[in-house]
Amino acid sequence: MKKPGWKSEKNLSLLVDFYEITMTNGYLMNKDTDVRVYFDYFFRRVPDGGGFAITAGLEQFIDYIVNIEFSQEDIEMLRKMDMFCEEFLDYLKNFKFDGDIWAIPEGTPVFPNTPIITIGASILQAQLIETMLLLTLNHQSLIATKANRIVRAAGKKPVVDFGARRGHGIDATLYGARAMYISGCIGTSNVLAHKMFDIPVIGTMAHSWVQFYGDDRTAFQNYAMAYPHKSVFLVDTYNVLNSGVPAAIDVFRTMEENASKGIRLDSGDLNYFAVKSRELLDEAGFTDAKITVSSSLDEYKIRELEMQGAPIDSYGVGERMMTSSSEPVYGGVYKLVAVEKDGIIEPRIKLSEDIIKVTNPGLKDVWRFYDNNTGKAFSDLLTFKGESVGQTYVLFDEAMPSKKKTAKNFTARKLQELIIEKGKVVYKFPTLDEIRQYCQSEINKLWDGLLRFETPDQYYVNLSFDLWNEKRSQIEENYTKLESSSN
Amino acid sequence: MKKPGWKSEKNLSLLVDFYEITMTNGYLMNKDTDVRVYFDYFFRRVPDGGGFAITAGLEQFIDYIVNIEFSQEDIEMLRKMDMFCEEFLDYLKNFKFDGDIWAIPEGTPVFPNTPIITIGASILQAQLIETMLLLTLNHQSLIATKANRIVRAAGKKPVVDFGARRGHGIDATLYGARAMYISGCIGTSNVLAHKMFDIPVIGTMAHSWVQFYGDDRTAFQNYAMAYPHKSVFLVDTYNVLNSGVPAAIDVFRTMEENASKGIRLDSGDLNYFAVKSRELLDEAGFTDAKITVSSSLDEYKIRELEMQGAPIDSYGVGERMMTSSSEPVYGGVYKLVAVEKDGIIEPRIKLSEDIIKVTNPGLKDVWRFYDNNTGKAFSDLLTFKGESVGQTYVLFDEAMPSKKKTAKNFTARKLQELIIEKGKVVYKFPTLDEIRQYCQSEINKLWDGLLRFETPDQYYVNLSFDLWNEKRSQIEENYTKLESSSN
Repeated sequence: MKKPGWKSEKNLSLLVDFYEITMTNGYLMNKDTDVRVYFDYFFRRVPDGGGFAITAGLEQFIDYIVNIEFSQEDIEMLRKMDMFCEEFLDYLKNFKFDGDIWAIPEGTPVFPNTPIITIGASILQAQLIETMLLLTLNHQSLIATKANRIVRAAGKKPVVDFGARRGHGIDATLYGARAMYISGCIGTSNVLAHKMFDIPVIGTMAHSWVQFYGDDRTAFQNYAMAYPHKSVFLVDTYNVLNSGVPAAIDVFRTMEENASKGIRLDSGDLNYFAVKSRELLDEAGFTDAKITVSSSLDEYKIRELEMQGAPIDSYGVGERMMTSSSEPVYGGVYKLVAVEKDGIIEPRIKLSEDIIKVTNPGLKDVWRFYDNNTGKAFSDLLTFKGESVGQTYVLFDEAMPSKKKTAKNFTARKLQELIIEKGKVVYKFPTLDEIRQYCQSEINKLWDGLLRFETPDQYYVNLSFDLWNEKRSQIEENYTKLESSSN
Repeated sequence: MKKPGWKSEKNLSLLVDFYEITMTNGYLMNKDTDVRVYFDYFFRRVPDGGGFAITAGLEQFIDYIVNIEFSQEDIEMLRKMDMFCEEFLDYLKNFKFDGDIWAIPEGTPVFPNTPIITIGASILQAQLIETMLLLTLNHQSLIATKANRIVRAAGKKPVVDFGARRGHGIDATLYGARAMYISGCIGTSNVLAHKMFDIPVIGTMAHSWVQFYGDDRTAFQNYAMAYPHKSVFLVDTYNVLNSGVPAAIDVFRTMEENASKGIRLDSGDLNYFAVKSRELLDEAGFTDAKITVSSSLDEYKIRELEMQGAPIDSYGVGERMMTSSSEPVYGGVYKLVAVEKDGIIEPRIKLSEDIIKVTNPGLKDVWRFYDNNTGKAFSDLLTFKGESVGQTYVLFDEAMPSKKKTAKNFTARKLQELIIEKGKVVYKFPTLDEIRQYCQSEINKLWDGLLRFETPDQYYVNLSFDLWNEKRSQIEENYTKLESSSN
């Protein structure tokens, strides 16, 4: 690992749901310790009804995996519960993850039902890491997905994270800022996120600065004294057009010509105040002074402002990006898909009353098909691991298998990479800037129809014939068994 | 502090918005280092349209305050930005909070515009702690407020936190679990939250356990082997009524009579499956077997289930409580309310286009009036610090001052307590169980009208005449100044 994660010295080994402990002890008491299993991490629905999500959080999850260590104190606590066998407590004492992990790289646009992470490990190990996998990936993917919508709405104008004060705790702000940067924000106001991740840090003044000095002019003068080369004045503490902007202009006149100058609007009708402020600034000759706005922004508000042609130069976005407030849950799940017995991998399925919750069984590969003419991605394909994809490939819709399409002249890329092999990290983690560039380049390979905020085009995640056949027969087999048992 | 916070060994000093650094350096360059100011932390609207919020997070905020320490590395990083004076960097090196902090105790029901925390400190110190105050209190108060709605919906039935996998990062799950426990949840599935806060921990099995063993009966048998005294079986992996519950009953028959037995339903129509499962369990003689349900629950779904009389014994609540998904932002703000000059405290106001955003100026006391006959709280009152409240008190509505009410036969209690005096903690922090009991007892003192989920009764937060008069004259003075400057 290049850089220790925030928590890497901290003992997070007990950050598990209790059932992971009771099940793990149970597997051991049933002598199933060494059975190897496969779990998939995937999600079922894109937040906000969007066309795609962006996966993020892998580096922190792997950081956790390589640092798992149950302390003597942890084990004592569990022993006192009087529920677990000594053999299990010994097992925890020597716990070390020695399985395999495959994952789609951070920053990749991803779609429902695609296995984003696959774990191959003993049932004990695979079960114990569930909660940290889910919360780490779910959180960062949620924020990366939301932030990219906001960045897209702003077009070429920069978007900055102003959300620390509304995050759900410390990590939410730090890893939230990381996720936002991956998916296109240009900076953050969070100084610790800057220190940890080298994300550019940005900030100016609060209303308290203006209140402290009692009037706009004194406040701006005193600020410009401290920052003669770059000053952005917050102009809405008392009155934007009668006091804030005129005072800003007066103080700009005292500053060097090539100093960076700007104002920030944080309330009211942002389009109206931006238009009027721009007029005042331009009339005074400060055509180069920038206008930044903030105040409960999200992709919808920014889209409206852009459609109205508001003369805004950059957006500071807070709570609605930091919490993904319109949809603050990323429903990633972690499901058993196969059990290995005597070297044979048996696919397993989970049924449900809800069709959407029926899982895709088996150890799988994930392919993305790119059209060689346009460079655009047009389908993902799930196959059993080891299946090959030739020069042409017949894709069909699982919901209507007779609906077929023969793909030609495409490049198929395996999306998952091997991250950990037998417990050892074999993946070279990209830098955050590399992830950010990769994210943008992969988004550029999506059809425009997927970029809409509402009613995006549907992207297909298809199954290979063999995989579909296995899924179908598992479903049928299970229903036959259930029918017979209910008679 | 009784127990070190999760982060107390970690350096959170840079968890600030960058403008706090630029302003602090700016105050120092303007020689305003030692000016003492007062800030209030308050919120403007109860999430979810509820009748009240519950304040939480004070202990973690104070833990941060007493541990602030800028490292040499932090200071080097700031120096390299080439924006800050050496005197400021020296100041940070020796930073120690030596101001005063008053706060309303955790677990108190609170209302819009009530100062929940008040800081009295040098402008530099008061400004630097803004972000951590906001994010810590906003997060825990949000979750405590949401969790209490859910607990109220469930009536006397226990509610357990199942949300770790959907929290916004590690802290969100740990301090979220803490906040939920304060406001009435009986436990959590999060083992680390159990270790840190002694919150009871609860958990059973996942679908993966059942999938691993391939059928319900084998899975439940193997679980009961490991946990003969207490087993709760997840019955919906394949089919609840044809397979899950019958298998559970078969295995219950093999267990000791006084073993604790139960099933969990995690999908489908929970009322239907609870009714049918109850029938099957009762017919088989297991009238004591408990039914737990989970699956995207919140106060609205639980209310429906309770209204239908669903035979459910307890609720496991995940993502919708952990993220407060219906409203994931708690809009607490931190505003300058006074500046002390030559020993005189000058009130300061922030105006806004939005009336709701105009602040209450001055260093204040917060009183709660309880009716001596009913014991119920009927009004909060903000006064200047030091104003007294006698045997009778004329309350009036700020929005319509002629609307008056003379309060008699009441007990007025000052809600804020002194937590830190001149940098020293002078408050004895209650235990988490004490906070939880206090929270419930204070909720019992609210009128029933405030407990509704929708359209609750309004609770009044009034101003003393002197405070109202000051606010009014500050508003008028500011508008007069603005009018004259625009001429």
